[in-house]
Amino acid sequence: MNVQPVNEEMRSAAQAALDRKTKPRGSLGRLEELAAQIAAIRGSVAPEPLRAAIVVAAADHGVAAEGVSAYPQEVTGQMLANFASGGAAVSVIARRTGAELVVVDVGVVTPSAVEGVRNARLGPGTANAAAGPAMTRAQALEAIRRGRELAEELSASGFSVVALGDMGIANTTAAAAICCALLERDPVDMAGPGTGLDEHGVAHKAQVITRMLEVNAVDASDPIGVLAALGGFELGLLAGLALATAEMQGVVVLDGFITSTAALVACRIEPHAAGYLVASHLSPEPGHAPLLYSLDLRPLLELGLRLGEGSGAALALPLLAAARDVLVDMATFDEAGVSDTGR
Amino acid sequence: MNVQPVNEEMRSAAQAALDRKTKPRGSLGRLEELAAQIAAIRGSVAPEPLRAAIVVAAADHGVAAEGVSAYPQEVTGQMLANFASGGAAVSVIARRTGAELVVVDVGVVTPSAVEGVRNARLGPGTANAAAGPAMTRAQALEAIRRGRELAEELSASGFSVVALGDMGIANTTAAAAICCALLERDPVDMAGPGTGLDEHGVAHKAQVITRMLEVNAVDASDPIGVLAALGGFELGLLAGLALATAEMQGVVVLDGFITSTAALVACRIEPHAAGYLVASHLSPEPGHAPLLYSLDLRPLLELGLRLGEGSGAALALPLLAAARDVLVDMATFDEAGVSDTGR
Repeated sequence: MNVQPVNEEMRSAAQAALDRKTKPRGSLGRLEELAAQIAAIRGSVAPEPLRAAIVVAAADHGVAAEGVSAYPQEVTGQMLANFASGGAAVSVIARRTGAELVVVDVGVVTPSAVEGVRNARLGPGTANAAAGPAMTRAQALEAIRRGRELAEELSASGFSVVALGDMGIANTTAAAAICCALLERDPVDMAGPGTGLDEHGVAHKAQVITRMLEVNAVDASDPIGVLAALGGFELGLLAGLALATAEMQGVVVLDGFITSTAALVACRIEPHAAGYLVASHLSPEPGHAPLLYSLDLRPLLELGLRLGEGSGAALALPLLAAARDVLVDMATFDEAGVSDTGR
Repeated sequence: MNVQPVNEEMRSAAQAALDRKTKPRGSLGRLEELAAQIAAIRGSVAPEPLRAAIVVAAADHGVAAEGVSAYPQEVTGQMLANFASGGAAVSVIARRTGAELVVVDVGVVTPSAVEGVRNARLGPGTANAAAGPAMTRAQALEAIRRGRELAEELSASGFSVVALGDMGIANTTAAAAICCALLERDPVDMAGPGTGLDEHGVAHKAQVITRMLEVNAVDASDPIGVLAALGGFELGLLAGLALATAEMQGVVVLDGFITSTAALVACRIEPHAAGYLVASHLSPEPGHAPLLYSLDLRPLLELGLRLGEGSGAALALPLLAAARDVLVDMATFDEAGVSDTGR
């Protein structure tokens, strides 16, 4: 199966429908654009109420050994348990939003035996990408395949929106390296503080990314090769999840820098996938703005969120629901008997 | 009763509590600031789940006779019926958010006999403020009193959040005139397209505002006099609603330019009211940014919304709910057994 372009006729029909609703033309701004995009993705000018799942994919990164994070690697597995038991930010926000939270272990170093964590483990974290490839090409393909499998299951269960979340100590390093490779950017531009590095930490991180790129000699025209070389398991699963969700006309909601990097990989595999993406927010992580720009995406929120785990995507879900409702449930000027003299 | 300053000790205690939650310090950005503000307003580090009412106050403006709107005056009353019967944008978004929608006729020209519209009418619209005062001082005080009365009723019914919404053809003209008077700005800076004026229309509107200010010779140190001279009934009711909600430690959520102007009047009456305000979004209406700046408020959303009727405030309500939940329901590092080594 391939990703089809989103339905531009439905986008236009939705905009025309919005123009008949009881409000001045265009007065709901970006909410109208979002509604029209949802129509284009779902292939309907009156899409069913959206049902959203938030997938938090967690894995560890061998490159953590280079001292690129403020937190130890054991935190990835600990947070996985916290997601599943309902105490993490994304758990709390998902509950409030009525979204289904799906927590996936794609390969943390210290797995937790907590109920509610799905096992999609590809190993106890990736290898250190500053010393060689993070994973084999077969592992990268398998991570993508498992993401596709999950997308199919979610679609079959009636979820029309899939929000991407991530957890993985050192995964901003992996993501920044992938962005450098695919966008041909300098590590100094893409390395950021992540969960809380200081200036020296960020400079060290940029050096580590430079080493990752030198050691692996990746080819920007081979996104799967880039993913395999630089990691991580969760990035691969999220890329596959985005790809197959787009294939099945689902809406893919990005969170921050990591999930947007997974989407970049997906779009390098299938360029039409970009039309199915919604950027929930702009992170202060310095690589996020150029990354979203490269995908031609404008974020909905700008609240200084830099947590990851799908928390920003979860916060944007009510905007998607409202956009769909405005398109489908609002009265037209005719229906409501309101004079329409505006332009 | 007076508006007390918000509780700064609770704000600090909330920030300290947020720092113990399972996330890097400050990584939820402005959501954390919002959570701390809610704690400061409610006077509790663990506030009860928020219950929100959206009050849409509608009235007509005599200054509409000067041709300052793209829509005829009858639309105010027609939209009032649309709010109550559930077809307007704010109706649709309120339903989705689970907020109570309260629709109030403070004086439209053509009232509609639709069920669900509260009668707080002060007359069939204000007089033309370009030819004399929009209303008497007694009417302005009565509008504020009716807003206070509604706030008391909502508080007694358990609503801890009151979102302000407005409807009134020509009310951006009244609001811009009030802002010019209270902020000592030039009409050219504060006049905007409203529901859809072109460049010539905006220039004409600025001339009308200049005339309103000349004819009425208002005194910036007398906010009630300014309100009476320049109008409107709905602005007075919303100012009173904001004031009394603040007195009762409720959260006041602003929508766009009109409701923010009502809040400015409230803050000129009781400066401590400013601490209870949350700016839901930034409107493209040119006066909105300087107005929010003067109130020391930063908007949560910037989506190009320029509809009014409380639609932007309604869209921001899930962010308030999420902020409260993060503060109260998230696990701490200790509770979740997660290593806390970040700064």
